[in-house]
This record gives sequence, structure tokens and C-alpha cells, in this order.
Amino acid sequence: MSRAGRRITCITGGVGGAKLVLGLQQVLPPGNITAIVNTGDDFRHLGFWVSPDIDTLLYTLSGKSNVAQGWGREGESWAFMAALRELGGEDWFQLGDGDLALHVLRSLALASGKTLSAVTGGFARRWGIGVTVLPMSDDSIATVVNTEEGELPFQRYFVERRCEPRVSAIRFDGASRASPAPGVVEAIRGADMVLIAPSNPFLSVDPILAIPAIRTALEGRSAPVVAVSPLVGGRAVKGPTAKLMEELGISVHNDSIAAHYEGLVDGLLIDSGDGCNDEAIRIARTSTLMNSMADKARVARAAMQLAEELAT
Amino acid sequence: MSRAGRRITCITGGVGGAKLVLGLQQVLPPGNITAIVNTGDDFRHLGFWVSPDIDTLLYTLSGKSNVAQGWGREGESWAFMAALRELGGEDWFQLGDGDLALHVLRSLALASGKTLSAVTGGFARRWGIGVTVLPMSDDSIATVVNTEEGELPFQRYFVERRCEPRVSAIRFDGASRASPAPGVVEAIRGADMVLIAPSNPFLSVDPILAIPAIRTALEGRSAPVVAVSPLVGGRAVKGPTAKLMEELGISVHNDSIAAHYEGLVDGLLIDSGDGCNDEAIRIARTSTLMNSMADKARVARAAMQLAEELAT
Repeated sequence: MSRAGRRITCITGGVGGAKLVLGLQQVLPPGNITAIVNTGDDFRHLGFWVSPDIDTLLYTLSGKSNVAQGWGREGESWAFMAALRELGGEDWFQLGDGDLALHVLRSLALASGKTLSAVTGGFARRWGIGVTVLPMSDDSIATVVNTEEGELPFQRYFVERRCEPRVSAIRFDGASRASPAPGVVEAIRGADMVLIAPSNPFLSVDPILAIPAIRTALEGRSAPVVAVSPLVGGRAVKGPTAKLMEELGISVHNDSIAAHYEGLVDGLLIDSGDGCNDEAIRIARTSTLMNSMADKARVARAAMQLAEELAT
Repeated sequence: MSRAGRRITCITGGVGGAKLVLGLQQVLPPGNITAIVNTGDDFRHLGFWVSPDIDTLLYTLSGKSNVAQGWGREGESWAFMAALRELGGEDWFQLGDGDLALHVLRSLALASGKTLSAVTGGFARRWGIGVTVLPMSDDSIATVVNTEEGELPFQRYFVERRCEPRVSAIRFDGASRASPAPGVVEAIRGADMVLIAPSNPFLSVDPILAIPAIRTALEGRSAPVVAVSPLVGGRAVKGPTAKLMEELGISVHNDSIAAHYEGLVDGLLIDSGDGCNDEAIRIARTSTLMNSMADKARVARAAMQLAEELAT
């Protein structure tokens, strides 16, 4: 089978995963790509159901994302937030004027009984996105962070408190009873390779792996599974990965990433400057920073190459 | 008692009533004025609870209204509507980016069990509005228009269909079982005079009068009640009043307005160029077009003057 014919399933959080999927799109037709997206960050805010990682995928893949900012829409305006603030509304989580449309329509559809996966698929079709974007589950799962300040819902920790409180534990409420969204297990079982994006393993990937049927599907994989390490030069590219690992008493090294994914992945793609001593896992290297589109495509190709080697 | 000490209660729909209340504010301290506002136009849209007449009062009295447009906020932006349209959302009812804050916070507060009157009072305080703005009721009342195209909820008739379908009847679902909001009956009973704003009698004032306890309070009035006619030169200043009267087989004349309010009002303020042959009601005249602030103050003074004559 030609490389272009491969079906790839990518397990992903927000920004890092969206970059890897963009890279895959440079190599494969979008119809061959499925993204299984973390929804542990989802939360109800001002009456809306907000799905930050799904929205990052949707905005990125439709070319609407604010790349410099790292979240939300390009060219966004903020009149709603200004008016909300004036009325004393909660303003710690920024909702742009255009972005609101997504939250309003999603909330309306969910309230009418539609599933998150149906809603997400509808948005993707509207915006001409060829990649299949699947929430990990249509059930509600909430990432809760245990910190020195007490338990914090994910967005309170991540956005309001800017990841400042020290973390002692993370849990995913509802995950153990959750079912994967329709198509998720099939996308893992039917793929020629599965990639785990360089998203935060503890906050963004673990909620997905905490769903029993998803973990079982990965454990029983026939196709190779390759993770892309979120560490570059022993640090996280973006977000709180390294800080969090230190707080959890985990060495900030690819050995820890390999150990974390043990039994679930066959290969780990790490940055050219980094090492990994794990002998149970196949290692490959490339420069894993994904700034330009060429970077993204290179990382995607390197991950696919590693998976292909593992398959033979 | 000095004129400035008078307590005035104004029964009102949207734009015309907001203008009269602005005029009253030129004559009286705002704390002496209570507006009882139509909520028959209220409706659920995109998951929000929208209260158009209340919002017109709030925007007008806080100096935020778009006077040229006749509704919504001055300097409004429309990124939400553009994004909504792109996603296939319902776009027949315009919700500005800043305006959304009001609908989001109102809907959230109502969902948490607060009453519409509590929410409205909170907004008014936030914006430094001294007039007491009361919804006619905290119960849900829906104006339904029977037209040649079938029954239409008010906003579908008024906004989406631009009052084009011929009307054969109007009803106010829920009004007969509704209670007045807290303070409404007290504001009628305790006022030195009650004014009925030059809002549409059939669409904007009738829903208020359809609440049994409000009608009873007006029928049992001790203070004079004066209505300001919405007709100027035998036509309505704004909106569908004249067209609607014709469709309902009612002569477009102040005699009809006087007859419509019979038993509830003691005086009718009409435009200088118009007549009224009703002998059961005291008539006064002024130029009732309210463009400038001086116009509004003049109409307010003329209505108060008529009420004072009736009281002696």
C-alpha cells in the first residue's frame, strides 16, 4: 500500500495535536486521518458547553485559528467580553465574539439531545474539514486537578490560575464509566497506524486513555502505535508539562514518557537533541518543534516512518 | 406636593415608552418613576431568554441605545452573527456582540432560579439606572398573532415577517394565569398618577392589561390614569399600529384608542393636529412626536399636566 493510502488515527489534545494533524494532512488525504480528541477539558461556562481541544482542532484545520495566540480565532473581536465585564459577569475565561457562535450552537444542539460527536461532525462539515474529528466520548468526563490550593476543575487550574498551583494528583471524573464516541474504537482498530500527539500526556492524553474501551483497543492493537514526545531538550514546548512532571515527582526525561505509555505504544519519536534509554520501545529522532508547515510535515513523516518500520 | 415630588408609574412597551420615561426623567427625579414593561414579546432564541422591551428601556435609560436604529446598542458589532450564519445558525433575529452579554447573563440567572424582575433590577443597578424598571410579570406570557399565514409567535411576526401578514386576532398566552411581578400592583396603587405610554395598544400595552391583577388595580385606581395616544395625524409614529388597527377593523382614530382604554384611563393626550370625540374621557393636546429631548420632556409635562387636572 502506498504511504498516501495509509489510514492514520491520531490521539490528541489541543495545540500540539492540531499541529501534528496539520502535518499529516501534508502527507495524506484528509479523509484518511481521524483525530480522537480529549474532552476532559470541556466545561460548562456562562451556560455554554465549551470544548476547548475540539475547537482548537476545528479552528486549526479550517484555517481560522489564531496561531500567534495559540487558541481561539484569528481576527477575533471582544465586544461581548467587554459588555459582560461591565455587567459583572465572570470574565476569567475569554470568549471571543465569533467564537461564541460555536458555543451557542453546540450548547443548543446538546440541549436538544444531539451528541457531542454529531455536533462536532456537523461543524467540521460546515467548515469543509476533511479530517474526521471525534471527541473521545459523548459522555461527560471532567479532568480535576488536585493542587496545594485544593481540587480545581481543569479550566480553573489551566486558565484562571495559569497552572501556578503545585499539582499532587489528576483524576478524570466519569472516565471509568464512559463509552468511547461512535467510531473511536473502530478508528483505532481499523487504522494502519495510531499516533499519540505531543500533547500533555498527563492532562491531555491520559483522559483519553482513562476510557476503558479505548485503553483496551490500544492494548489489543494490531497496527503500530507511535507517540511523539512533548519534550524538546528536556523541556515542554508549550504549557505546563515539565512543571507538572516535576510536581508529580516524575523525571522530566523521555524515559518517563516511554514508561508512562508502556504497554500502549511501540515507538516514541523524540527530539534530535534528546535521548531515551527505554529498551522496550523503538526510538526515532527528528527535530520535533513544529513551527512552520514544513516542520509539521517532517514530524508527521518521521512518526509515520517509525510506525512503518515497526509494522514490518 | 411639588410636581418634582410626584410618584409616576408608566405602563410601557419598548421604544415609545422608553422615550416617555426619558422625558419624565427631565421633570422628576428618576427614583420617583416606575416603568412597568411588556414582556409578551419575550422569547427563547438560540437558547437565550430575550426580553426586547425591557432591554430597550435598559439601553435607553443607560444611554447605550442605538437611537437611529431604534433597537439594540450604539456602536454594536456583529461578529457573532457572521460566525453564526457561517455555521448555519438561525439568523433572522439580530443579536449584537455586546447585546449578547445581557442575554447570556439573563438566561444564566433565570436558569439558576432568579426571577426576571430580580435580573432586570440587577442590570439597572449595574448601569446606574435610577428609574425602577419592572417586568409586568415574572411568569412567562407569550403574545401570539393570528394571521392569514397562521399563528405566529410575536417576534416571528414582528421581526422575521416584518408585520406583513394581515392580523385577525392577538392573544397573550399565560396572561390570565399570570401574577404581576413584585412591586407592580404597589406601583400602580401608590402612584400619584399612572401614564400609559404611546406604545402599540394592541401588541405592547394589552399584554400588560391582560394580567388580571394589573387590570383590577387600574380599574380600582384612586390616582388619575392618562394614556398618550400612539397616533399622530391619524397614523402611528412607528411600527404597525395603524396597519394593525385597519386589519382588526378598528378605525384609525383617537376615538378608537379612547374606546380601547375605556374604564381604565381618565385622560388621553393626543397630538395637536388630531381630534377625539370621546366624551367619557378628558382630552389634552400637544405635539406628541418625541424626537428631541425637549420633545420628550414636553410630552411628559403635558401628560402630567392632564393627570394633575384630573386629580383636582
